[in-house]
Amino acid sequence: MEVLSNVHPCADNRPACQQWIIKGSHSIEYSVIEAPRLFDSTNIKLAVCGSSASSMTYDKRLIFVDSEVLTFHGPRLRQFFNAFEGEYRIVPIHITERLKDYAMVESILQHMVDFGVSRKDEPVIAIGGGCLMDVVGMAASLYRRGVPYIRIPTTLLGIVDAAVGVKTGSNFGAHKNRVGSYYAPICALLDTSFLETLPTRHIKNGMAEILKMAIIADQALFTVIEKNVEHLMADRLAQSALSLGVVRSAVHGMLKELEPNLWESNLQRLVDFGHTLSPIFEMKAVDTLLHGEAVAVDMCISTLVAANRKLLEPRQALRIIELTKKIGLPIIHPTCTSANITQALAEIVKHRDGLQRMPVPTDIGQATFLHDVTAQECIRACEQLREIAQQYSPA
Amino acid sequence: MEVLSNVHPCADNRPACQQWIIKGSHSIEYSVIEAPRLFDSTNIKLAVCGSSASSMTYDKRLIFVDSEVLTFHGPRLRQFFNAFEGEYRIVPIHITERLKDYAMVESILQHMVDFGVSRKDEPVIAIGGGCLMDVVGMAASLYRRGVPYIRIPTTLLGIVDAAVGVKTGSNFGAHKNRVGSYYAPICALLDTSFLETLPTRHIKNGMAEILKMAIIADQALFTVIEKNVEHLMADRLAQSALSLGVVRSAVHGMLKELEPNLWESNLQRLVDFGHTLSPIFEMKAVDTLLHGEAVAVDMCISTLVAANRKLLEPRQALRIIELTKKIGLPIIHPTCTSANITQALAEIVKHRDGLQRMPVPTDIGQATFLHDVTAQECIRACEQLREIAQQYSPA
Repeated sequence: MEVLSNVHPCADNRPACQQWIIKGSHSIEYSVIEAPRLFDSTNIKLAVCGSSASSMTYDKRLIFVDSEVLTFHGPRLRQFFNAFEGEYRIVPIHITERLKDYAMVESILQHMVDFGVSRKDEPVIAIGGGCLMDVVGMAASLYRRGVPYIRIPTTLLGIVDAAVGVKTGSNFGAHKNRVGSYYAPICALLDTSFLETLPTRHIKNGMAEILKMAIIADQALFTVIEKNVEHLMADRLAQSALSLGVVRSAVHGMLKELEPNLWESNLQRLVDFGHTLSPIFEMKAVDTLLHGEAVAVDMCISTLVAANRKLLEPRQALRIIELTKKIGLPIIHPTCTSANITQALAEIVKHRDGLQRMPVPTDIGQATFLHDVTAQECIRACEQLREIAQQYSPA
Repeated sequence: MEVLSNVHPCADNRPACQQWIIKGSHSIEYSVIEAPRLFDSTNIKLAVCGSSASSMTYDKRLIFVDSEVLTFHGPRLRQFFNAFEGEYRIVPIHITERLKDYAMVESILQHMVDFGVSRKDEPVIAIGGGCLMDVVGMAASLYRRGVPYIRIPTTLLGIVDAAVGVKTGSNFGAHKNRVGSYYAPICALLDTSFLETLPTRHIKNGMAEILKMAIIADQALFTVIEKNVEHLMADRLAQSALSLGVVRSAVHGMLKELEPNLWESNLQRLVDFGHTLSPIFEMKAVDTLLHGEAVAVDMCISTLVAANRKLLEPRQALRIIELTKKIGLPIIHPTCTSANITQALAEIVKHRDGLQRMPVPTDIGQATFLHDVTAQECIRACEQLREIAQQYSPA
């Protein structure tokens, strides 16, 4: 602590004014772990995560599970937890993007109060997709100013994106993720077996974030996806060595980008590719457009903005758009209106502290940032995308 | 980032499992500044706080002010802000301990949305007592996952306690400060002129936290208060050099205790003296018992627990209780029931991760921690306090 005396003008009749400068540093560490067969009775990964003892016993666990996941996996989850000695409670949570709000966080907090979650030694467990992990993470960060929690993603988007970073949050009114915190889980456990029962649309949804990583930072990954897209989609990214390799590369790339900037002191982030216009698209069509779908549309617009500025070869732009389409993701959407784009560009400047910082690809695996993209440029890109979309499915 | 391959048992038909270990470190720095005449038109302290330019201009400021404070100081606040070039909005907030809840944080967040608070360059300003600063701080920590804010305490408790640390929070149901965050302001500006219009009961309320610092860590401060209690109370701690010295010592002592433990990685905190049983007392009498009053009662009980265990000389215990009484603080309260004390001891063990960690004085200016205090011991102390209280005001 530094104490400065009389460095500021002070009132006449007073002793010299004082200023204290308080400094602190906070370190975090967490693990992202590939954990196949996580809920096999002999698998101890979940039991030892966050527990000082490497045993299969624990005291108390409060477990939030997406109610859809419970429909498919309820019996094996209950069997797994029944085998342990401690007390546990499974709380089913029905959640969608529309329901992911401040009140949902309150209901999660109320469950924590009711169960009596302790401050440090009884990690809360979140089993579900990105929305569920976001709100449970936010509640965990607030409860007693922070209790430990574990993320177990059950969607592809959750595995490659929401589970591996430190962001938590909820929507606020019509504003996407307007509130939240940076709060790391003690660990994220990745079990792709959940993908076997995940609806195909949600596999595509997660592929959008994998594609994002490939476009901005991993040419090799892009090529692998390009060559094997049918296989990957048929396998649901769940089982084959190729699928696991793709998931692993995406996770690795994401973590490499996130780690030096966990608290987002730098708001110029490559991983924000596809996340400039998409928050508005997503919230304007909250019941019909998934996160990855909105990101895919944004990526295609950003790609054409770059191509139109001659920052990216047209050939590479087409590769990106074609692969997006092949995965089964939309490349354009009715929410891509002039009004929405104008609103999104204004909003993103506030969110990125005065500059657009819009990531656009300059090659497959390379990107740069633009700060002066106009709504007109985006609208032109949208028009081009509508034409391209028509070529794929002529009227 | 550390990448471990095949360190965990993995399923048979899969490539070796992988684990990523992500590490990060986050540094903060903030200032606590004595700032008399803060709202004099020529005072630039508020204008330069958090602003990169040392100028008196700024863009936009959203200012939350306790509505009581606005009654007394509205004209000079408005005059002060009118003199600046930027856009500002003063939002009056009516807040009490009962109203300091999760919904109040939501309403603060809604004002931030409506005003359009930016992410880094437009610090939100909180002018009021501890409750107001706690909820505005919590909202600031959540909005866009953290926007800068400035604390300007208007109560003695705010000046010596709530404003200077990094905790934010709100009550949740009947649970005192059950949710919140560790989120430093960019600065806290201390202007004791607000104390001139503060009700006497709130001066006493703040004195409880000053007394706490004296008992656990500052014998000299205790002696000064003991010798000058009438003067200090008559001056409302606002103007004399003696008052300013007492406030400064209390702030300095508090910051010295807080700085090495800003995120409370160590839950054994001297500053928790008087905060073991008091959260329950306070919430059970939320409309009638102030924070400092509940703390005073807890301090007296803790003091007698120590004396009864012969950890503290009876003579020193009496000095503490007498000074508490002389300040005009309660030494016992109807909420000190067996049921409430039992509940408080159970709850504190959860909050302090499995151990009581109850600070008790061993001398004036010295303290230790107890982990095995029984409800019976506390109840015995309460009976002794009731007797002592009767001696002060015989029936």
